[in-house]
Amino acid sequence: MNALVMAGGSGTRFWPASRESLPKQFLCITGNRSMLEETIARIGPTIPESRVAVVVGKIHEGVTRQILDGTPVRVLVEPTGRNTAACIGLAALHLRRQGAGEPVVVLPADHFIARSDLFNEILASAAGPAREGAIVTIGIEPTRPETGYGYIRVDSRADLGRLSGSTFLHRVDSFVEKPDLERAIQYLGSGEYLWNSGIFVFTPEVILSEISTHLPVLAEGLAEIDEAIDRPDYQEVLERVYGTLPAISIDHGIIEKTSLPLYVIRADFGWSDVGSWQALYELREGETDEQGNLLQGAVWVEDSRRNLVYSKSGRQVAILGVEGLVIVDTEDMLMVADLTRSQDVKRFALRERQRE
Amino acid sequence: MNALVMAGGSGTRFWPASRESLPKQFLCITGNRSMLEETIARIGPTIPESRVAVVVGKIHEGVTRQILDGTPVRVLVEPTGRNTAACIGLAALHLRRQGAGEPVVVLPADHFIARSDLFNEILASAAGPAREGAIVTIGIEPTRPETGYGYIRVDSRADLGRLSGSTFLHRVDSFVEKPDLERAIQYLGSGEYLWNSGIFVFTPEVILSEISTHLPVLAEGLAEIDEAIDRPDYQEVLERVYGTLPAISIDHGIIEKTSLPLYVIRADFGWSDVGSWQALYELREGETDEQGNLLQGAVWVEDSRRNLVYSKSGRQVAILGVEGLVIVDTEDMLMVADLTRSQDVKRFALRERQRE
Repeated sequence: MNALVMAGGSGTRFWPASRESLPKQFLCITGNRSMLEETIARIGPTIPESRVAVVVGKIHEGVTRQILDGTPVRVLVEPTGRNTAACIGLAALHLRRQGAGEPVVVLPADHFIARSDLFNEILASAAGPAREGAIVTIGIEPTRPETGYGYIRVDSRADLGRLSGSTFLHRVDSFVEKPDLERAIQYLGSGEYLWNSGIFVFTPEVILSEISTHLPVLAEGLAEIDEAIDRPDYQEVLERVYGTLPAISIDHGIIEKTSLPLYVIRADFGWSDVGSWQALYELREGETDEQGNLLQGAVWVEDSRRNLVYSKSGRQVAILGVEGLVIVDTEDMLMVADLTRSQDVKRFALRERQRE
Repeated sequence: MNALVMAGGSGTRFWPASRESLPKQFLCITGNRSMLEETIARIGPTIPESRVAVVVGKIHEGVTRQILDGTPVRVLVEPTGRNTAACIGLAALHLRRQGAGEPVVVLPADHFIARSDLFNEILASAAGPAREGAIVTIGIEPTRPETGYGYIRVDSRADLGRLSGSTFLHRVDSFVEKPDLERAIQYLGSGEYLWNSGIFVFTPEVILSEISTHLPVLAEGLAEIDEAIDRPDYQEVLERVYGTLPAISIDHGIIEKTSLPLYVIRADFGWSDVGSWQALYELREGETDEQGNLLQGAVWVEDSRRNLVYSKSGRQVAILGVEGLVIVDTEDMLMVADLTRSQDVKRFALRERQRE
């Protein structure tokens, strides 16, 4: 198998640690390594680094090459962001050369997975159906009425059985957009809806053929790039053509429309998209001090509970008598916020962009 | 009149803005100028800069001379801290040369006074009795059962009348050490106790004579320094003798023991010793934004109330959904504390000293 790690996120949710120049996937927030490195290491048992490609935007090429320096991981650079269909299409052109019928796992660089072993089993399970021409997605059992995710409705008439433990293979009934709260509560109760993890498995051959069927304009542009791929003017052609490609997501453009067999693997492998400072705190709650403080950097703590302190500035931080805060200290920015309000920190990212 | 501004405080209460090298009197926390400059400016209507002397410790000589550069204010440097009796004694030797019988106002460099006009009236009122050989102190009408201050008990049998408005002159009955809470409540109710502001008025002649009477060892040392005052080896003598002087406060050593006429002027001129970040917040509450935030530096505020943000680092600070915090951001330290706990910030100052 091959892997395509999508590292194009712009990252405003972890402001001020994540900035336009250094979004979440490049931060060491879930461990000692960047989320990108953790993502690659996690799939290591199934997919060696030499079979991993990372797609990044131009402004993150430098940091990505720096992080991956000395590894055989391939870096593909998008001249400009054109959403996931174009990004995956471009990658598929390259991966096709390593095996047109070899399954590719497409996964975001900035998700957290607690149970790597199970996740690797799932990837292995997905390879078979993908090799036979199916599109396989991975669905997460919902644990709250989340309105920020897309959902996958499973086809309960076509249960394909247990893969292992509590991991099941289903046919997909349909993909559902981010619901309102009422719907989300209903989905949670029904047992028929899973969170769409944004992780897919398919072969380059299959996805490029689906692009030809459902997104002919994109297919045309990709063909032009493909012809140039071994020529010296490749970069030139790529830069010229890529910006003209239609910007559409792989979900909307292909997955929701495909008539190919569409499966979802339902599993509970401790997944989180780490969507906020609060989500990060909850994820790492086991690593706090006795008072529930999650501390990164040099921090003096007096009578304080359940705070997340993330200091990148090298300065000494001191907290006294405070509770439930997220304190983020960087070279040029300092943020102090109520942890439960951390979904709103993007307001500051916006202010920063407006200022610039 | 002359003024002696005592700027020897070591300052741990405004940590991390105040540090060993830069205590509170050198910070711009009550206005746009340092508290030392504000103290000198405040008494300007009564005492011109050319008649002001500032006493500082050796490690603060540099910052003091820098702040006062271009002014005729005289800087006296203590080779080492020996408490207020020695410090005032040393200053009196110098001030005696400008007029042995000319009253000197001795006042701390790090207090805040809202009503400067009234304060100047009080100083002028104190000059007469001081010139006649009395020691005059200034007492503050207590507004809370404060256990952190010394008190002055007025002699109610000897009320000397109104000076102006609500300003009265009393004989002092006695000086009282910092009380426990029960006593402080009793003092507050009795109407006979005032806070000791630590501001005194007397002549150099009187105080030096009182030192001879009550502190003969100190008097001896001062005499040795005095002889050298116009000689080229003055600095040498000062450094040798000063460290051997007894370390005792002017209150304990002289004022509580004197048999000279002892007066207290009782007044309400908006005094604060600015003893904590919380005290500073309360002092400047009129300068907050609509949500009660007192902000110094570049701060983005979202849904936050009654916070004190003091940023000296030049960095952008952002606060979201927080209330009642003090956030102090300096080049090498960051503190986030509950404002009502601000008397405990000295714990961090201690930790810092232990680390060094």
